[in-house]
Amino acid sequence: MKIILDAMGGDNAPAEILKGAADAVVTFAPDLEIIAVGDAEKIAACARENNLKLDHIEIVNATETIEMCDEPAKAVRTKKDSSMVVGLKLLAEGKGDAFVSAGSTGALHVGTSLIVRTVKGIKRPALATIIPGKTPFMLLDSGANVECRPSMLEAFGVMGSVYMEKVMGVKNPRVALVNNGAEESKGTPTYVEAHALLKANNRINFVGNVEPRDIPAGVADVVVADGFTGNVILKLTEGLAKFFGAKLKGLFKSGVKGALAYLLLKGGVADFKKGMDADEYGGAPFLGAAKPVIKAHGSSNARAIHQAIRQAKLCVENDLCGVMARNLTSEEKEA
Amino acid sequence: MKIILDAMGGDNAPAEILKGAADAVVTFAPDLEIIAVGDAEKIAACARENNLKLDHIEIVNATETIEMCDEPAKAVRTKKDSSMVVGLKLLAEGKGDAFVSAGSTGALHVGTSLIVRTVKGIKRPALATIIPGKTPFMLLDSGANVECRPSMLEAFGVMGSVYMEKVMGVKNPRVALVNNGAEESKGTPTYVEAHALLKANNRINFVGNVEPRDIPAGVADVVVADGFTGNVILKLTEGLAKFFGAKLKGLFKSGVKGALAYLLLKGGVADFKKGMDADEYGGAPFLGAAKPVIKAHGSSNARAIHQAIRQAKLCVENDLCGVMARNLTSEEKEA
Repeated sequence: MKIILDAMGGDNAPAEILKGAADAVVTFAPDLEIIAVGDAEKIAACARENNLKLDHIEIVNATETIEMCDEPAKAVRTKKDSSMVVGLKLLAEGKGDAFVSAGSTGALHVGTSLIVRTVKGIKRPALATIIPGKTPFMLLDSGANVECRPSMLEAFGVMGSVYMEKVMGVKNPRVALVNNGAEESKGTPTYVEAHALLKANNRINFVGNVEPRDIPAGVADVVVADGFTGNVILKLTEGLAKFFGAKLKGLFKSGVKGALAYLLLKGGVADFKKGMDADEYGGAPFLGAAKPVIKAHGSSNARAIHQAIRQAKLCVENDLCGVMARNLTSEEKEA
Repeated sequence: MKIILDAMGGDNAPAEILKGAADAVVTFAPDLEIIAVGDAEKIAACARENNLKLDHIEIVNATETIEMCDEPAKAVRTKKDSSMVVGLKLLAEGKGDAFVSAGSTGALHVGTSLIVRTVKGIKRPALATIIPGKTPFMLLDSGANVECRPSMLEAFGVMGSVYMEKVMGVKNPRVALVNNGAEESKGTPTYVEAHALLKANNRINFVGNVEPRDIPAGVADVVVADGFTGNVILKLTEGLAKFFGAKLKGLFKSGVKGALAYLLLKGGVADFKKGMDADEYGGAPFLGAAKPVIKAHGSSNARAIHQAIRQAKLCVENDLCGVMARNLTSEEKEA
């Protein structure tokens, strides 16, 4: 299997990206080859400096880089020789099986839609994020499509369900629709209609509306929302985790008592932090793309890249996009 | 001043409601009189059982109660002799200055719109909630109007600003619009237009879009959102606070080390809990109503009712609705 990697995307490129790739090649040998796309000279220099072995990593040169500040659509159109565009083209041409990038989310969304294209019935892919909680769940769309029609919300339910089953190994995943009440009549007209469509869809295990209060309690494996609402859920979760974390840190730093308490709780706090580490699950897949495209976090380190490559490999091995395409169009769920 | 109180609304009615009222009369003597609306026999029996003095509390009999399961619009239309409808009518007729209820949010919203009516330019009031964080902020709409036009979002900014200034004593409150990015072009067409309207409004201190990640960090005093999104923010904040609280409790309960750490941190944890106690700020006002209407939490105890009465009193003393009406229609901000 060949995974294509954007060697220049993200805050820690190319060093951490290449380290993650080198680690992944060792972990998954002999099944994995990597195509690293980016400035070949910089990549070679970085490998020398960091004493990295690039066995089983093919370098494909790309002279440009899409920056976070670039306007996504324009960047994809004009930076033809950027690591992201070249990587997506290699994927579209079948030179590799999946693409991983820690670069601009917006550009990756546009580039995926235009270059890799989407499965039948999906116009633009959804950004799907795995969020830790009592049990980890998939939130989609978490920000790519700010406005969604009811049929898109239905498709999100199907795609999220296939992902949780095929990649995360969750049997018969529980799919829920974010809403401001449990009753079918709740929410905007879009949400009322989406509820009816999800309920009638026999390829998913729809458990009804979920109130945001219950999301962290693990009541669903797939949480469906439009991209505007999903983005609020994703970002507010991040913000509140940071806020409560800082408060806890403040308690530990309040004198001798706090320091002593920290020593007593250190192991438990570390376990909790590890449980809340989203990197463990890899990056955010663009579901609905014709081939697997994974957005790794912009701040990804080698470990996060390693996990995103692992995730891309699972998507390929389980024919995620194929099963998804069939489940989106057929009447019955594929076993 | 006379505050009208729904004696039968909420999980702990009428006992905690009456206790809160009796406490408030003592705290604010001799400036406060209360009209408690509800089943006069039950109220008298409850006062006897709990040894409550009802000095300065006038009882107005109402034979019905609107239940949480009642369909709001139907309940307001058919339960003419309910404590909520009778209380709202007393307010509309000028028999009292403000109304406080811990009953059904939906029914109170409909009842306020139909019976108390709204100030000019506002069709349906917004439910505004004070949320603790690094600094407390007002979130509106937090669930009453699931669909909002841009002009409604603009009005929310003006109303929230007046409230934070007049009732919470915040000078020149910072108003922000929830959005999935800082740029003016972010969000749905509704949010793009709302941003432009808020920016052009010279009666508020608009600080631009706020990403949900930054909401808990205290970057704004007034956070504007449509009721669907606002409800997500309110409920997810509750859910995550509960989730992180349970995790912390779990650490403290993990054997001798945890128990010892709890003893060391007890004071700090209690202070933090107190700081996060929304009851301190009273209930959620329905902003845009022609007269002050406060929704106390359904689970309100005597302390919460006391604070909601205090809040209603501040709204009346500072002519909240008058200032709001003038700021919604005039070109210049009222000093």
